[in-house]
Amino acid sequence: MRDVAIIGVHVTKCGEIWDTSFRDLFVEAGLGAIKDSGVDHIDSMYVGCMSGGLFVGQEHIGALMADYLATGPIPATRVESACASGGVALRAGWLDVASGNSDIVLVGGVEKMTDVGGDEATYALATAADQEWEGFNGVTFPGLYAMMAVAHMNRYKTTPEQMAAVAVKNHDNGSKNPVAQFPMKITVDAVLNSVLVADPLHILDCSPVTDGAAAAILVPADMASKLGKKQGVKILGSGHATDTIALHQRKDLATLEAVAKSASVAYDTSGKKPGDIDVCEVHDCFTIAEIMATEALGFFEKGQGGPAVEAGDTRIGGTIPVNTSGGLKSKGHPVGASGVSQVVEIVEQLRGESGDRQVKGAKVGMTQNMGGTGASSVVHIMEAM
Amino acid sequence: MRDVAIIGVHVTKCGEIWDTSFRDLFVEAGLGAIKDSGVDHIDSMYVGCMSGGLFVGQEHIGALMADYLATGPIPATRVESACASGGVALRAGWLDVASGNSDIVLVGGVEKMTDVGGDEATYALATAADQEWEGFNGVTFPGLYAMMAVAHMNRYKTTPEQMAAVAVKNHDNGSKNPVAQFPMKITVDAVLNSVLVADPLHILDCSPVTDGAAAAILVPADMASKLGKKQGVKILGSGHATDTIALHQRKDLATLEAVAKSASVAYDTSGKKPGDIDVCEVHDCFTIAEIMATEALGFFEKGQGGPAVEAGDTRIGGTIPVNTSGGLKSKGHPVGASGVSQVVEIVEQLRGESGDRQVKGAKVGMTQNMGGTGASSVVHIMEAM
Repeated sequence: MRDVAIIGVHVTKCGEIWDTSFRDLFVEAGLGAIKDSGVDHIDSMYVGCMSGGLFVGQEHIGALMADYLATGPIPATRVESACASGGVALRAGWLDVASGNSDIVLVGGVEKMTDVGGDEATYALATAADQEWEGFNGVTFPGLYAMMAVAHMNRYKTTPEQMAAVAVKNHDNGSKNPVAQFPMKITVDAVLNSVLVADPLHILDCSPVTDGAAAAILVPADMASKLGKKQGVKILGSGHATDTIALHQRKDLATLEAVAKSASVAYDTSGKKPGDIDVCEVHDCFTIAEIMATEALGFFEKGQGGPAVEAGDTRIGGTIPVNTSGGLKSKGHPVGASGVSQVVEIVEQLRGESGDRQVKGAKVGMTQNMGGTGASSVVHIMEAM
Repeated sequence: MRDVAIIGVHVTKCGEIWDTSFRDLFVEAGLGAIKDSGVDHIDSMYVGCMSGGLFVGQEHIGALMADYLATGPIPATRVESACASGGVALRAGWLDVASGNSDIVLVGGVEKMTDVGGDEATYALATAADQEWEGFNGVTFPGLYAMMAVAHMNRYKTTPEQMAAVAVKNHDNGSKNPVAQFPMKITVDAVLNSVLVADPLHILDCSPVTDGAAAAILVPADMASKLGKKQGVKILGSGHATDTIALHQRKDLATLEAVAKSASVAYDTSGKKPGDIDVCEVHDCFTIAEIMATEALGFFEKGQGGPAVEAGDTRIGGTIPVNTSGGLKSKGHPVGASGVSQVVEIVEQLRGESGDRQVKGAKVGMTQNMGGTGASSVVHIMEAM
């Protein structure tokens, strides 16, 4: 397999973007990544999108985006793994280049979630769960993650204040990110006093409904310096794993097995270990998800994710800075795009382009993107070339 | 890149399958392919599905199917390219094995279309078109293909009788296929006297709404005889191309450019030419589509597809037997599964297992799977090992 490098990235403004359509959001991200890289054509394309059908009444998303990006008649495929759709798009592009089949691959993600009402968005998001056992019985995602939070609190004494500390940190980081949907700083008290969505999760424990898109350009690593204008970032390892789709079928609600498995594969293939990671974007759809993910990725012992965030270990300047972009919590969570927007942040960090959010001397980065309540997880480890 | 072989296939009964759920259809196909191959585990999985969201309220389809197929925590990704979703699933699996990343990959497709009413199914199918320019203005797929038929009739003197001959041939073939949804034989008169859906297309020019699933097991070609119980079928070439998603933006409504482009890539990579193909499954969502596809694949000169089918050239025993399974027209068109069900037919033909439908001495076969009005096309060329 060929080594693969990322030579260009772009993410759009995230938020309620009423003046840009589904397709135009993707085109903006794609053209931005193409410009950032300096390539003059694309050989193949993968588009991560969770539910074009339910959010905007549009499927056949690969061909649509190739058409509107004016790539010419290239292979273009939409991939879906709920909120991990962006992560699987990166993995599909990585395989396409690694195989030797394509040299220049555009990997993108997009979701336009605010064209439907709140009830419809809640229904669309619930299709990431097991519809026969969960969705049709009325449980929605805040309810599912609330059950995971309660299990973690019971097992490990994790507190609402520790979960709130995740939100406070991510909003601090997001306040320095110009594309963030909710860049305001918040406090632990503000989180704990915000409206309860599903006990123990308050609304400020939850990521928002977001429009946005992101893209990256992948090439063989040995062509990165020739094709790219900027420093390349090599993909050292890729891991993808699944778990039961329904929460009630897990052995342990307080553990994300697919995250641990996908991380294990990425560590093994990259030759890196948790202590080698300088900066990491994890899937903080809810504050408890970040705590559980940082444990499953091996940054902290099980049960120590809460105390670690409260102690500042995951802040910029801490032992392992997590979600320097602001994460899904503050930057926003355009579900099909989030996995690729994580890659944008890590590539910019490894290039030293992150301004006020820069992790000094960051050389090795990680992205962890999750679908559903953790039924899918995709982990990539990258290094500055 | 490693050579890739198919060592097991299965397709479910196609039709209005009221007693088997979306997930159970896929599991039936997957277990059938696993049994046919003899493998004892799966390393990775790709699931083609057009619109789980709109048809059954379920996304996150890769993880769901891995869970219910009890594969263990393997990477599982849903891919979508409208009615070409099955074709892109095969291509994704081919890349995964060819790259060296996975050894045993299950490629499947599934759609459960009859759980919604006719209006909802028509809306869901229309999401394969350009929703902003076509769908939202009310045109549906019979209307779009009717415009293509009219263009072909005007340009090449193609007749309604020639289109009807496609349906007659495919129902003849389907009458010998136990999984076919509509196995009855029909006549040219029956087609021409059936209700007009969108002039000049009668209802017997149209493929039906179908539930069904299909699956195939892919392995490195040099492991085929060790892992598989039966004769392996090698994938010689894979082509995938796109075109404008909206019909009105094509240079010529009577030509399927993406089919020609995807075929050209598949011919080039396989070293085969049209005259080398012994048996072919093409995307006959409407009778005019088969005529246009057989021209774009190079079997006939442009404008000669109609006379050729009328002359019997595409019958079993003709110069190039097309849609020996009965095609989408008679076998049925579970949209996300159709591309994989084509592969099932070709693998069985190349193994000599097709009974009354067998093309004598077939050694090289082709599948051509299309999305929308031809905005996506995927072509694979295969050879008995």
